[in-house]
Amino acid sequence: MGDIPETHPRRDSLISRQKLVEAATKGMLADSALIAHGRGEAFDYLLGEKTCEAAKLAIAETASRLQKAKKCVISVNGNTVALAGTQLIVCAALLNCPIEVNIYYRTPKRMEVLLSTLKEQKQDASELFPKMKDEISRVKILGDNPDVRIPNLDGPRANCHSEGIFSADTILVPLEDGDRCEALIAMGKTVCVIDLNPLSRTAKTATITIVDELTRCVSILIELLMNGSDLQSTNWNNENNLQNVIQEILQNFN
Amino acid sequence: MGDIPETHPRRDSLISRQKLVEAATKGMLADSALIAHGRGEAFDYLLGEKTCEAAKLAIAETASRLQKAKKCVISVNGNTVALAGTQLIVCAALLNCPIEVNIYYRTPKRMEVLLSTLKEQKQDASELFPKMKDEISRVKILGDNPDVRIPNLDGPRANCHSEGIFSADTILVPLEDGDRCEALIAMGKTVCVIDLNPLSRTAKTATITIVDELTRCVSILIELLMNGSDLQSTNWNNENNLQNVIQEILQNFN
Repeated sequence: MGDIPETHPRRDSLISRQKLVEAATKGMLADSALIAHGRGEAFDYLLGEKTCEAAKLAIAETASRLQKAKKCVISVNGNTVALAGTQLIVCAALLNCPIEVNIYYRTPKRMEVLLSTLKEQKQDASELFPKMKDEISRVKILGDNPDVRIPNLDGPRANCHSEGIFSADTILVPLEDGDRCEALIAMGKTVCVIDLNPLSRTAKTATITIVDELTRCVSILIELLMNGSDLQSTNWNNENNLQNVIQEILQNFN
Repeated sequence: MGDIPETHPRRDSLISRQKLVEAATKGMLADSALIAHGRGEAFDYLLGEKTCEAAKLAIAETASRLQKAKKCVISVNGNTVALAGTQLIVCAALLNCPIEVNIYYRTPKRMEVLLSTLKEQKQDASELFPKMKDEISRVKILGDNPDVRIPNLDGPRANCHSEGIFSADTILVPLEDGDRCEALIAMGKTVCVIDLNPLSRTAKTATITIVDELTRCVSILIELLMNGSDLQSTNWNNENNLQNVIQEILQNFN
């Protein structure tokens, strides 16, 4: 898609688009991944391509839950790795937790490309945050050798690692699908999702739903995790928060 | 993406998705075409994946303007050919007008695939509507040899045929981009667009904006053109119609 001018009003959105197109070329994505991204783009457009107030609260609550977890994990798919792999490795380093690749359309080739991309992104993360080099190097990347299944869930995305998703009490899942979100909740986990559609089944099912664009909210999350020794968990009402997001969207329509 | 069960509640949407993924494989689409489709999907989701009342009025108005035009043309891009090429050939046959391929990311390879797909779709259209075989066979497919440019528009999408887009007084353009829509309006044309985003620049600029999913509204358009000897053009207020669409979307949010 060529170079995007520094001054373009939709620069961030176009950069994300470019990253995904490149990821598709590398074989990192399922056939319909670009379409899914476009759906998200439309909702972000309705949010004015900025992090709304309700989302800021959800990000803070997520930071708090992740920090207080006994054992947490970050679950990633192809789109997530393409858009925010490096950022999420930094999160994992700050939380001292693993990252687990979990995808629906699982093929050996896609898994291989995703795992090798994450390894490269560990290098990128170390270069961006040289003071955290040791913590970053210790981040485990799981997904290549799942040894257990999420109960009550069909298909390859049920496969996971016992030392990762299966045993974690708290999970951060950007761009989750509805069925898996329900199955994780049924396991009693705290499920923090990032989903631009406030009406989706995932958004409605999760413990905490961040309705925001992935790279934008993860930047805020990193900042909170870095400075967040005083993070306090509140009485979280996810349904209310989603209603507040919807109100912000409705205002943008008028 | 495999077979889609007949009973799937989102069957039409998934079939469209599959058509586009196949078209991408054939080289018919620009890199970002699937993302653009996803954006549309999200707006269609907000419309409840059905043709709203305001859209029905816009389709009727479009049918009327096309029938009363001195000279009309249907402009198509890659996504349009993939999703509704056959249907639009039937429209062109009913209107006795040409179809012109006009794309932003113009390469000889893409043009070739699009033109040959449209030729195949002429066959498909004849099989679907055998009584219209002669009219369908007479539909001219333009785009291979543009001889003139749309004024005040940069890039390859300004290239068009003097016997097609350039000289038409009325143009039907599914999935149009904002700049080109403005340039066509500036030429004094009646521009009827199909755009799922009622807030887009295209939607706001066009003479008539049908806010509806492409294949769904073109089915209705075909029906009107077939039975529409009594179509009457009203005092069309596009801004009001868009406001009515937005009201229908807002109701779906609550």
